[in-house]
Amino acid sequence: MNIRIVLKVIGTVMFWEAFLMFPSLIISLVDKSYDINAFLISIILIGIIGAILKNFKTNGSHMRKREGFAAVSISWLAMSIFGALPFYISGSIPSYIDALFETASGFTTTGASILLDIESLPRGLLFWRSFTHWIGGMGVLVFTLALVPSLGARSGFLMKAESPGPSPGKLVPKLSETAKILYIIYGVMTGILIIFLVISGMSVFDSFIHAFGTAGTGGFSNRALSVGAYNNPWIDWIITIFMFLFGVNFSLHYFILRGDWKNVFKNEEFRFYGITVLIAILLICINILPLNDFSIADSLRQSAFQVSTVVTTTGYATTDFNLWPTFSKTILMMLMIFGACAGSTGGGIKFVRILVLVKSVYYEIKHTIHPNSVRTVKVDGKSLDTDTLTSIMIFFFAYVAILIIAVIIISLDNFDFMTTFSSVIATLSNIGPGFEMVGPMGNYEAFSNLSKIVLTACMIIGRLEIIPVIVLLSPSIYKKN
Amino acid sequence: MNIRIVLKVIGTVMFWEAFLMFPSLIISLVDKSYDINAFLISIILIGIIGAILKNFKTNGSHMRKREGFAAVSISWLAMSIFGALPFYISGSIPSYIDALFETASGFTTTGASILLDIESLPRGLLFWRSFTHWIGGMGVLVFTLALVPSLGARSGFLMKAESPGPSPGKLVPKLSETAKILYIIYGVMTGILIIFLVISGMSVFDSFIHAFGTAGTGGFSNRALSVGAYNNPWIDWIITIFMFLFGVNFSLHYFILRGDWKNVFKNEEFRFYGITVLIAILLICINILPLNDFSIADSLRQSAFQVSTVVTTTGYATTDFNLWPTFSKTILMMLMIFGACAGSTGGGIKFVRILVLVKSVYYEIKHTIHPNSVRTVKVDGKSLDTDTLTSIMIFFFAYVAILIIAVIIISLDNFDFMTTFSSVIATLSNIGPGFEMVGPMGNYEAFSNLSKIVLTACMIIGRLEIIPVIVLLSPSIYKKN
Repeated sequence: MNIRIVLKVIGTVMFWEAFLMFPSLIISLVDKSYDINAFLISIILIGIIGAILKNFKTNGSHMRKREGFAAVSISWLAMSIFGALPFYISGSIPSYIDALFETASGFTTTGASILLDIESLPRGLLFWRSFTHWIGGMGVLVFTLALVPSLGARSGFLMKAESPGPSPGKLVPKLSETAKILYIIYGVMTGILIIFLVISGMSVFDSFIHAFGTAGTGGFSNRALSVGAYNNPWIDWIITIFMFLFGVNFSLHYFILRGDWKNVFKNEEFRFYGITVLIAILLICINILPLNDFSIADSLRQSAFQVSTVVTTTGYATTDFNLWPTFSKTILMMLMIFGACAGSTGGGIKFVRILVLVKSVYYEIKHTIHPNSVRTVKVDGKSLDTDTLTSIMIFFFAYVAILIIAVIIISLDNFDFMTTFSSVIATLSNIGPGFEMVGPMGNYEAFSNLSKIVLTACMIIGRLEIIPVIVLLSPSIYKKN
Repeated sequence: MNIRIVLKVIGTVMFWEAFLMFPSLIISLVDKSYDINAFLISIILIGIIGAILKNFKTNGSHMRKREGFAAVSISWLAMSIFGALPFYISGSIPSYIDALFETASGFTTTGASILLDIESLPRGLLFWRSFTHWIGGMGVLVFTLALVPSLGARSGFLMKAESPGPSPGKLVPKLSETAKILYIIYGVMTGILIIFLVISGMSVFDSFIHAFGTAGTGGFSNRALSVGAYNNPWIDWIITIFMFLFGVNFSLHYFILRGDWKNVFKNEEFRFYGITVLIAILLICINILPLNDFSIADSLRQSAFQVSTVVTTTGYATTDFNLWPTFSKTILMMLMIFGACAGSTGGGIKFVRILVLVKSVYYEIKHTIHPNSVRTVKVDGKSLDTDTLTSIMIFFFAYVAILIIAVIIISLDNFDFMTTFSSVIATLSNIGPGFEMVGPMGNYEAFSNLSKIVLTACMIIGRLEIIPVIVLLSPSIYKKN
């Protein structure tokens, strides 16, 4: 592998990271809070390292697939390792592993927290903590756009899934143009959300914080009770709807902008996502009616919020779903595994993969009964080749395999099984809260350092859709060729 | 579908079932217990229905694949529906659904029980209850031998896995000869186990009961404390070793009989199974040392017994592993999902499928790095075709899908999540005990009738390796063609 080219990419990313810390520095300067020096030192350090790496000579060699994998995976790691510095240097998170966990949770848009007293943090650090969500969400869009296609035929499919329209692969012919369109949609939607939140009575700062967490499907709040702290039905519904929207494939937003509604409703993943969400909201609403004195409005609002937060892997909360009946908890658990749509900022397995797997089983059964029938799985009217199918199945199996291995390691901490199991799902699918100890009103502080490292790894592995990270870990890519 | 040919098969199976109730009748006659009439009525009823169906004219048409699926699936169901009669008629299980659950649990070699006071049952019924395990275990051997190959190329692989030797497909050229060999091995091993148990001090009746449960990898005991009731290390170790052996592919026993040890150790599934079991025993042994006052002998015995019982999907217990640390419980949970070897009497996903999935991920990663590399998965030196691979992946996904659906339904009973989740795994993988309420010292009595029916369905679906049952449920096989 050509290390220099990888380091050059990482340098560029770090240089940007230093730059992106400025808004937080300004807030801490305005507040004259204790985190000013922490941001100054971090910006200078990260900026210098970034600048050095950025200017590496690459001897004119170009990037191959393996370098691409390495660059993306290590960039995400480097962003987290260095992004943790303000928390650590300021002393607000005394353990560096905790700071790393919190930052990786931010960049991967997970939203799992180790902070016991969020509200005591200065606003500069709170801004940085939530801004990482927004940066991470942006990063995911680049990632699916630029790297996923290079995975070859099988992930070319995910690109197809992203743009179900007549132009396969990209929204517009040029990749950089597509990226620009996606970023504009992302930025404008975030802006609209901030305005709505401010109108609903949330403070401007809090609106930014919660818009970042919603847009990136992250889930960090600056309030201990999360969105529940505002006790405002308008805020609940606005965030519910925006979470749902940020969980949709972004190319659909592009089609909506162009007034191309046909392409939106024709999209099988979107239909599957929408119907699943509606059914889940309805079932849970009925199931929790007795807990809300049979108020349909309250039950529906709570159900819709919690379903949206879980299915889009955001992780905000307006109530502690740990206290809900097992049926509701089971449905939420299932949605956690499903995740959002491909091409969104959400994590998890993604609806389109689940759709393909369900269809495969259907065709397999059909083939067993009628051996002459064709076993071609179609999505949006297009057939999937065997490679695509195999890689989706392998993705699914790899997800389960990593889940099992991580659960075994975390179980050494000897917390109850539900905490152990859901902490891994919640990090691997970039959700944030799980059940029991790591539930919406709990946090990850009590885990051992080993577990925190494993869960941090789960966040990054999950965010990068597993395969690139495994590739990076396999020794053969480091051989000279 | 040709219904007559299916009914004819079911008739034959039922005729046999009536015949197989005679030993239990004799025991109840000797004991002069209250279940004599129940057995008499059942035998007459089942015998008559069986005789009528058995003599159906089939108009010379032959059995196709769809009739084969239907015959096997419905036979298993019919065996359970009618086999439940002695429990119900005698009044020892007042609810018919409970009786059906218990009997299906017997025939599918699951071992999940709804009985709160096992020891109060007359010996005739206890014998019948455990004898269903032994019959079920036999049935599984016929099933894998006779039906699985008819599933076409992809399950032909499982047959190859069963006989890793030079003769692919069958141990000896004729299928009926192979069946005979398997039955002799099964019978002789059961006999040896009975002798060992009697020598160790178990009563003859109890030895039969526990040999049936071990051979069929079922797990029904006639003691409330299961094997733990004897408090005898010899019995623990004998059953541990025999559980392990009955979880091995039966063709390996044939190779051992022929002195062909090379073929045994060359078998990749066996090596994977053996190594996994050894590692699990060791890890749990260390983990539970503090619970046994650091006695290595006790910890090793408890660990080996519980690992064997879970991995082979038997379900006996010598201790309540609910009280173990989360790490040990997590390893047991993982082994529950794995199941035993293909071609054994055990249930679950089977080690060979896990092996193929692990290898697929490996080759997929290799292919991503080196696009020109071949992605052929090999087991025992033989390449698997794409169809086989796809069907194994689909089996895995179907297993997870059924697991999720069943868990959602069971969750309506509002027991804790661990009970809900593990009750489905324990029935779908034909294990028996799960965790919490359905743990080794608990039972399934408290579930609602709906849940009991769903769990009964899980047992049968799991026993028949999923696909045949789904095929049976799809409407298109009933169309005339």
